[in-house]
Amino acid sequence: MQRSLFSQRMQNIRASEIRELLKVTEQPEIISFAGGLPAPELFPARELAALTEEILLKQGTRALQYSTTEGYTPLRKKICERMQKVLNATVNLEETLITCGSQQALDFIGKAFLDKGDEVLMESPSYLGAINAFRAYEPKFVEVATDHEGMIPEALEEALKNARRPKFIYVVPDFQNPTGRTWSLARREALVRLTEKYEVLIVEDNPYGELRFEGEQIPAVKSLDTHGRVLYLGTFSKTLCPGMRIGWIAAAHHLIEPLVLIKQGADLHSSTLSQMQINLFMERYNLDDHIQSIREVYRRRRDTLIDAMEQRFDDNIRFTRPSGGLFSWIELPEGRDSRVLLEKAIGQKVAFVPGGSFYPCAPKHNTLRLNFSNMPEHRIVEGVERLEMLLNT
Amino acid sequence: MQRSLFSQRMQNIRASEIRELLKVTEQPEIISFAGGLPAPELFPARELAALTEEILLKQGTRALQYSTTEGYTPLRKKICERMQKVLNATVNLEETLITCGSQQALDFIGKAFLDKGDEVLMESPSYLGAINAFRAYEPKFVEVATDHEGMIPEALEEALKNARRPKFIYVVPDFQNPTGRTWSLARREALVRLTEKYEVLIVEDNPYGELRFEGEQIPAVKSLDTHGRVLYLGTFSKTLCPGMRIGWIAAAHHLIEPLVLIKQGADLHSSTLSQMQINLFMERYNLDDHIQSIREVYRRRRDTLIDAMEQRFDDNIRFTRPSGGLFSWIELPEGRDSRVLLEKAIGQKVAFVPGGSFYPCAPKHNTLRLNFSNMPEHRIVEGVERLEMLLNT
Repeated sequence: MQRSLFSQRMQNIRASEIRELLKVTEQPEIISFAGGLPAPELFPARELAALTEEILLKQGTRALQYSTTEGYTPLRKKICERMQKVLNATVNLEETLITCGSQQALDFIGKAFLDKGDEVLMESPSYLGAINAFRAYEPKFVEVATDHEGMIPEALEEALKNARRPKFIYVVPDFQNPTGRTWSLARREALVRLTEKYEVLIVEDNPYGELRFEGEQIPAVKSLDTHGRVLYLGTFSKTLCPGMRIGWIAAAHHLIEPLVLIKQGADLHSSTLSQMQINLFMERYNLDDHIQSIREVYRRRRDTLIDAMEQRFDDNIRFTRPSGGLFSWIELPEGRDSRVLLEKAIGQKVAFVPGGSFYPCAPKHNTLRLNFSNMPEHRIVEGVERLEMLLNT
Repeated sequence: MQRSLFSQRMQNIRASEIRELLKVTEQPEIISFAGGLPAPELFPARELAALTEEILLKQGTRALQYSTTEGYTPLRKKICERMQKVLNATVNLEETLITCGSQQALDFIGKAFLDKGDEVLMESPSYLGAINAFRAYEPKFVEVATDHEGMIPEALEEALKNARRPKFIYVVPDFQNPTGRTWSLARREALVRLTEKYEVLIVEDNPYGELRFEGEQIPAVKSLDTHGRVLYLGTFSKTLCPGMRIGWIAAAHHLIEPLVLIKQGADLHSSTLSQMQINLFMERYNLDDHIQSIREVYRRRRDTLIDAMEQRFDDNIRFTRPSGGLFSWIELPEGRDSRVLLEKAIGQKVAFVPGGSFYPCAPKHNTLRLNFSNMPEHRIVEGVERLEMLLNT
């Protein structure tokens, strides 16, 4: 029976190191720079409790019933308004689809667009969850050389020229996971220009864009898109809470339509109640104010992490200083292996994510990702001290 | 750009007639026998409001945070206990995975097991949502001749013999969607025997099993399975409420493990809060009592529908008399087309689902499905009267 019990695509599907790590790091004594967990003490639990009672008592028969695949219309309208206001991106109701977090959006996009062997172009490194989602559809990954300003246009054009069936370019232009880097405007414009020339789509994954600590906001790729080539992925996971699993895709209607059909077959629709909860939160409270309070806490934690690393780490250890988001990216000297470091670190009750899995083709094992959003400052300092000791042994 | 914008599998993915119909039937003046909607007035909205407040105020940081892919452990344990008690099926914690309703379970099973051209054997007719979910993975559907007791064993064996790469047999043995039929014990035993002989899996989809109105419960196929060949799909959609999208898969650990990896890539996990809500409902309230109240209401509605059809319909219109569940299945005289009937019916503000889409290979367009769970009795009578008029014109 084992001969062909599972489908061939299962040979490509692997456990995410992050998710496996989360199990170890659930122990409260672990100082965890792993995962991408928001600060739970900032979740608006009290507000959501009040809202939920109102929804269930006044509209319980609707909130607990099946609903349409596209999503709850009032929430979709608010998403359109917010994308206009925050991103200057014009999106109509019919161009939106509610998903179970951006992870589901990534899976659907793989399903809708990828045949075996089609090329997906990605930053190097890129988001592990996207690699995992796309891998199920057996694409060929192409890593495009990327520096602190984003993908290098010459490298991108070369990759597009050499690709046989390029389907889309996947990017996280703001405070990228895992590096924390943000693309410059010039690079975003070059990206849009090249996708028009080579007729490919862009998947812009933007979970962290609103969590900017300083400096000017740079226009979203979606706002530069005049040819309807950008599939924009948004989520409430980092601005409100991830546990309810509500995100969205915004894209031209002819791209959204097949994604709606996919969602119909994949889970019918996202939780009606969760959508109504987030919608009412946005009506009753000021999401901007809430996000501002998150920004302030994360900025202090980012400062604490960077200061501690500057003080403690040797000069041959390089790290990014992100202007927003949840992550800093570390490069150890050539030849060191962060997987070996992690084994020792777990013994010292500190955890992080080794960087190798963020490279779809050519892992650099001397890299690692540190999350700074999930821990109070004294724990961050303590964690860096432990890491430093391990790095010096 | 249109040459190969979408993946080849998209050619197989179609809009579900039910979901499209739901949009029309949202108008309150429509008497709808369409959809598979539970009675919303029975949702425990007040109880859930109280529970939710308790969860959010006491455990809000947990309820709104990311959680493990497998699901919330206390809920998974309760599912194991309930499967033992209600189905006499022994399932361990490690053999369960929480999903976004059974629809997501169907999608994951397609993804895990089906390569293009693999055979899926199904009842004739079978559940439209399963056909849609599997279709994305491009299998070959094989309809197995089915009567009022279930698949006919001789036809099933013949189909298994002729199949080149049969992967699994998909069945809804209790109060099937769309026919309302229930398999006899002998047929269930024959199914298990044949899958052992031919080394294929069984997918047992059981959303309605607990909604029995009369007669003895027949053992679940899962409880007859001694070789770990059954993937059992359960859901809270019909026993509690569908809007929160919580279901589960119970299967041998070596079958669950790859499904967990698929869920990791597909949406990370199901809503933490929804899982905690259902878990606490099962702790604080008696789910059996709640289900009993659903049974009583649905039985009366079933009786009303059947009585009205017996009084009104001509003898050449055949229909099933289900002992549970949500649906009755109508066969019109040969040559009549229920799609044509539906067009006229919508004009008379009554809706149902034409039966053709429930046949993966050879649609019988003289069939249709009537749902009786979602309307008060006087509307059911009124709806049958309108249908009768249309049938006689």
